[in-house]
Amino acid sequence: MDNINNSRPLDALNKSRNKRVIVELKSGKEYVGELNAFDIHINTVLENVEEIENGQVKRKLGTVFIRGDTITIISPQ
Amino acid sequence: MDNINNSRPLDALNKSRNKRVIVELKSGKEYVGELNAFDIHINTVLENVEEIENGQVKRKLGTVFIRGDTITIISPQ
Amino acid sequence: MDNINNSRPLDALNKSRNKRVIVELKSGKEYVGELNAFDIHINTVLENVEEIENGQVKRKLGTVFIRGDTITIISPQ
Amino acid sequence: MDNINNSRPLDALNKSRNKRVIVELKSGKEYVGELNAFDIHINTVLENVEEIENGQVKRKLGTVFIRGDTITIISPQ
Amino acid sequence: MDNINNSRPLDALNKSRNKRVIVELKSGKEYVGELNAFDIHINTVLENVEEIENGQVKRKLGTVFIRGDTITIISPQ
Amino acid sequence: MDNINNSRPLDALNKSRNKRVIVELKSGKEYVGELNAFDIHINTVLENVEEIENGQVKRKLGTVFIRGDTITIISPQ
Amino acid sequence: MDNINNSRPLDALNKSRNKRVIVELKSGKEYVGELNAFDIHINTVLENVEEIENGQVKRKLGTVFIRGDTITIISPQ
Repeated sequence: MDNINNSRPLDALNKSRNKRVIVELKSGKEYVGELNAFDIHINTVLENVEEIENGQVKRKLGTVFIRGDTITIISPQ
Repeated sequence: MDNINNSRPLDALNKSRNKRVIVELKSGKEYVGELNAFDIHINTVLENVEEIENGQVKRKLGTVFIRGDTITIISPQ
Repeated sequence: MDNINNSRPLDALNKSRNKRVIVELKSGKEYVGELNAFDIHINTVLENVEEIENGQVKRKLGTVFIRGDTITIISPQ
Repeated sequence: MDNINNSRPLDALNKSRNKRVIVELKSGKEYVGELNAFDIHINTVLENVEEIENGQVKRKLGTVFIRGDTITIISPQ
Repeated sequence: MDNINNSRPLDALNKSRNKRVIVELKSGKEYVGELNAFDIHINTVLENVEEIENGQVKRKLGTVFIRGDTITIISPQ
Repeated sequence: MDNINNSRPLDALNKSRNKRVIVELKSGKEYVGELNAFDIHINTVLENVEEIENGQVKRKLGTVFIRGDTITIISPQ
Repeated sequence: MDNINNSRPLDALNKSRNKRVIVELKSGKEYVGELNAFDIHINTVLENVEEIENGQVKRKLGTVFIRGDTITIISPQ
């Protein structure tokens, strides 16, 4: 019931910093990588990224900046 | 007629904190989990989540951060 | 010609508080329930809700929080 | 050439207050009714409304609140 | 090279005031009429309007208020 | 490495003032003309414009005001 | 674990200045070029650009201004 420490959504993102997360976009594409940075717009930077489309790895990318307004969910892997 | 206590939409969300809720997205996908956190943009964090597509559980996820602008409704289960 | 009392759209919504209203979304879905709360973004909370798709009741829900930017119209039933 | 009195778009809407107007939505639906209220977001309230889809009256509604961002045009009938 | 007088987009719109303009919407529809008013959101009022769809005049309207965010271009005829 | 003079996107647009540019819209349409004016919303005014659809000149227009939020790219020709 | 220096998304973009990056748009198009400038809206300027559609170079462009809200990801090549 630790309500106070968990009460803000960006705190939850902060706990995933430097861990691998799944970022899903409105287009349906997914990016899986280490969460390096994010801001209040949910602009997000991942490292060591796999771009996944229809369940298949489409390409590997080093650093990916993702514009926040294109994101639907972020979930630690 | 307890009009005063119920008058703001975010108060209603607050009553669902730590309870299981259904979150439906513009894409039609649903996420069912415990409501851990939300903010004024309706950015939302769920725990112990089932991702549901076309009425079927597609995958289970631990923590899910959902960007508010992709949400249509939130309803306690 | 009571122009002054009727001049703001949110005043009209306020008159429907605690009454059954139809809320239609951009997706075409309709939610029919008692209008419990709304704010300036038109974030809306309904109670005792029927979710209607293609003219058919799809499911019944207790409380539903609806994100304002997904709404097209609200009309007292 | 009465340029000054006509120079702001909301002034034009104001002249249609209490008159029947056509409101067309991005979805293509039209609502025809008496313009009761509007605000700077173009949130609009109509009275004695006909909902029109594909040129046919689909249903009649008493009061309709229309969220501004779903509107394309408003024109006095 | 009269760079200073032409440097702001709304100045160009202002030169078309009371002249016939074509307004094209995101939906592809066009409205041709006299530019009566506009504001910083590009909310626009036309007079003596022809609504054009697929190159055909669909209907004639007196005054039309057009919500700015639905407009793609405005061009003097 | 003249990093300072090139560091802001609107500076790059400013260099194209009075030169012919291609403006592409979200709809896929392109407008080619002299860049007369733009503002921080990227609302843009072109002169001596060709409207291009599917690689074909669809019509010629004198002055065209383009609402910024409908633009994807601007490139000097 | 250099958490502090990497903590803001725009810092990651800044490291790619004057390097070749891939910019992907919501439409699926990609622009590959040297990152010359960007701002807080992620409005971006590339130099020596290849426009790529369906994996094929569609055309070469000198300078391209890209409106931020049309961008999904930016990744150094």
